[in-house]
Amino acid sequence: MAAALLQVLPPGAILSDPEDTRPYECDGLAAYRQMPLIVVLPDSEAQIVAVLKLCHELQVPIVPRGAGTGLSGGAMPIADGVVLSTARLNRILRMDAYSRTAVVQPGVRNLAISDAAAQHGLYYAPDPSSQIACTIGGNVAENSGGVHCLKYGLTVHNVLRVRMVTIEGEVVELGSEALDAAGLDLLSVFIGSEGMLGIVTEVTVKLVPKPACARVIMASFNEVVAGCNAVAALIAAGIIPAGLEMMDQTSSRMVEPFVHAGYDTEAAAILLCEADGTAEEVEEEIARMSAVLQQAGASAIAVSQSEAERMKFWSGRKNAFPAAGRISPDYYCMDGTIPRKRLGQVLEGIAQMEAKYGLRCANVFHAGDGNLHPLILFNANIPDEFERAEAFGAEILALCVEVGGTITGEHGVGIEKINSMCAQFAPAELEAFFGVKRAFDPARLLNPDKAIPTLNRCAEFGKMRVSGGKLPFAYLPRF
Amino acid sequence: MAAALLQVLPPGAILSDPEDTRPYECDGLAAYRQMPLIVVLPDSEAQIVAVLKLCHELQVPIVPRGAGTGLSGGAMPIADGVVLSTARLNRILRMDAYSRTAVVQPGVRNLAISDAAAQHGLYYAPDPSSQIACTIGGNVAENSGGVHCLKYGLTVHNVLRVRMVTIEGEVVELGSEALDAAGLDLLSVFIGSEGMLGIVTEVTVKLVPKPACARVIMASFNEVVAGCNAVAALIAAGIIPAGLEMMDQTSSRMVEPFVHAGYDTEAAAILLCEADGTAEEVEEEIARMSAVLQQAGASAIAVSQSEAERMKFWSGRKNAFPAAGRISPDYYCMDGTIPRKRLGQVLEGIAQMEAKYGLRCANVFHAGDGNLHPLILFNANIPDEFERAEAFGAEILALCVEVGGTITGEHGVGIEKINSMCAQFAPAELEAFFGVKRAFDPARLLNPDKAIPTLNRCAEFGKMRVSGGKLPFAYLPRF
Repeated sequence: MAAALLQVLPPGAILSDPEDTRPYECDGLAAYRQMPLIVVLPDSEAQIVAVLKLCHELQVPIVPRGAGTGLSGGAMPIADGVVLSTARLNRILRMDAYSRTAVVQPGVRNLAISDAAAQHGLYYAPDPSSQIACTIGGNVAENSGGVHCLKYGLTVHNVLRVRMVTIEGEVVELGSEALDAAGLDLLSVFIGSEGMLGIVTEVTVKLVPKPACARVIMASFNEVVAGCNAVAALIAAGIIPAGLEMMDQTSSRMVEPFVHAGYDTEAAAILLCEADGTAEEVEEEIARMSAVLQQAGASAIAVSQSEAERMKFWSGRKNAFPAAGRISPDYYCMDGTIPRKRLGQVLEGIAQMEAKYGLRCANVFHAGDGNLHPLILFNANIPDEFERAEAFGAEILALCVEVGGTITGEHGVGIEKINSMCAQFAPAELEAFFGVKRAFDPARLLNPDKAIPTLNRCAEFGKMRVSGGKLPFAYLPRF
Repeated sequence: MAAALLQVLPPGAILSDPEDTRPYECDGLAAYRQMPLIVVLPDSEAQIVAVLKLCHELQVPIVPRGAGTGLSGGAMPIADGVVLSTARLNRILRMDAYSRTAVVQPGVRNLAISDAAAQHGLYYAPDPSSQIACTIGGNVAENSGGVHCLKYGLTVHNVLRVRMVTIEGEVVELGSEALDAAGLDLLSVFIGSEGMLGIVTEVTVKLVPKPACARVIMASFNEVVAGCNAVAALIAAGIIPAGLEMMDQTSSRMVEPFVHAGYDTEAAAILLCEADGTAEEVEEEIARMSAVLQQAGASAIAVSQSEAERMKFWSGRKNAFPAAGRISPDYYCMDGTIPRKRLGQVLEGIAQMEAKYGLRCANVFHAGDGNLHPLILFNANIPDEFERAEAFGAEILALCVEVGGTITGEHGVGIEKINSMCAQFAPAELEAFFGVKRAFDPARLLNPDKAIPTLNRCAEFGKMRVSGGKLPFAYLPRF
């Protein structure tokens, strides 16, 4: 394989020594590891075309990889496969302030787009918390969100066009610079397809004007359910906050000693609620938000008085995951999304599960979107704790599906949640997914065995659940 | 076939007498007509499942039909096929003001949703000009827009979930009530698929709060290009108007004697620019818009002073098509969409084509979206005029594609623009569309020969263009 690749790539673009390929054995979900056969680092679309044609000819599977920050194992290698990294396609090709668009290669970092657009007063809206490191190619693969996606949308709402290469080496453009494109909306199906349909070579993103001003409210609630109802009340009042995040007491007490964000650790839950726009718009919206929050029973309300204080309020939320690592040896981050009106019901359900499994759970989440990130705290060195954490997590996801939600909001399915897909979708729906997969990649060479479970797999998983709820060893996270 | 259908449908749900099937021989594109074999009018999902299973077994093609208001012939029957009308599935199943959603059957009229939601102060945002008559099933099939879609989005942005039946009779749910769904985004690919992937049985739509107030500016420009630049300047100023429409002098002079909307018929172009929201928001936005328009060279600005005046300003725009019928025996309405920044360039191109083809063209369009509706005026009774109109139209669409746009904004491809798809897409892209089509309907029974041209067809069309630009007779509109 390496010899064949040398016909189409320069030697420096091929890694096969285990010392060189070791960094690629996992992505951000480090519990799942697998050394790849070879890693390739093409630096042009022509090289990607050549690699794909070669792999197609030799029937070698390919795992595409962006920056490797994904949290669901979507970029985990295959033992007899090639990892194709898009890291070297890292140029911003065009930046057009007039049409507010940028054309970038897949290896451009999310934040680098906003940095480059700043001179025009513009930025790229979706802001996953990994935005310093993650790249737009990976964002397209996972349909990434962020704390501002309630107002500004997910990746799919901020990308106009994708240029990609099929497994057969054909270059295809999806979408258009105009509002709508004729034909089937393959751009939307491609965004979030977790590397199963093709390799991105160019992305045309929308840019939006940087708001002149932003302020954030921190509101305290004596009951979690009251906080949840306040979220619904804000939306019902016709307000779309620029960010609407909630943390329960376990989370705020976990974070406060670490970050000193000034959180009310006596409150059962705190809500962070941001307004952005012109100074007048922000002032008016902050007043309206405060009134709704007060009406909804907030026990205290603080509004950031400076940009420094705004950043301080957000710093606690943004450091919740590292803070969890300080108070618990291990934690398991879930990513369920539910209809907003079900927030109270699901949080009560999680509280009951804490008692049932004898484990604590810190709830930090994008409340406005209904996107939960429960952090189940456990110690893998205590016998049985990991198994309980895992069963706890599966029960949370099952509850999300039950109330009309979904098993992933923004982290993707990857390898981690592939069995939960069997709970979410009926065979006819999985078959519809595979139909589209086959349309692009009938030989299943692109990121196989990720994201969509085979019906066979679901049947086996169903049997396993019946026989005791254990996952096969290969899919147990290894801490 | 009728006998077989009687096994699964009551007699009143089957029409086969030509007297009964005549109304179904065309949709809103009346130039294309074809009598169907049979029309069926199921009134439940179970009946739709039974009809599809039967047609699948007997390999009989099916043309789905909503209210028949489509403008691209997407619901034109097939001689040996069944037309499946969803008109009898016309119930609103659930209306939930708290989650701001409604679950409706496909035959519910677009405006009926807003009427039912009005008691909660909500409405369904997409507003095609046929909204009194058109149904949500057809809106899903065509991904319909409207004058407010710049701010509120197309159908795809306002639908959360679709329940549909595949050609094999399997019921599949696409999307979710949560912000995002796991798996491939088949909801987006289904919306706008022109009846080629399945039959809709339920649609969950988003509802939005009715704005407390709305006002519209009418701005006059002495040059069309100045008006186009004003559109860009508004967007560049960070303003997203609730509606942003432009009419050239041909259009305003065509409409004014008919509607008496108070249009400035001396202006080369007029812009209608709406603000909605609270009274304070509207006041502020109208002031900002007026400043930008003045800066962009508007020669006069009028702001609606009452709801009656606002409706009067819009009445001219909304009656542009009927007005065209008063001044010209025939007109041909195009539907190209281009990047906003190309508006001036394309309008200049159209002006040159008017001279080249010796025909007038009235330009009425959703300027904010870049969605053009040039109305080519001609008289089919004058020898050669129709052929010139047709060549004119094809050249407009070719120009739209050339500047990075698309051949349809909201009317769909149907039968009308199937050859233009060959100009828009490369063979690899068409093959990707067909791949998805095959995944759902390998035998091509659902609305065959619409929306996506076969490579064969494109090859023939290419040859025809080389040999003189004539379309085959079967696809000539018959006036």
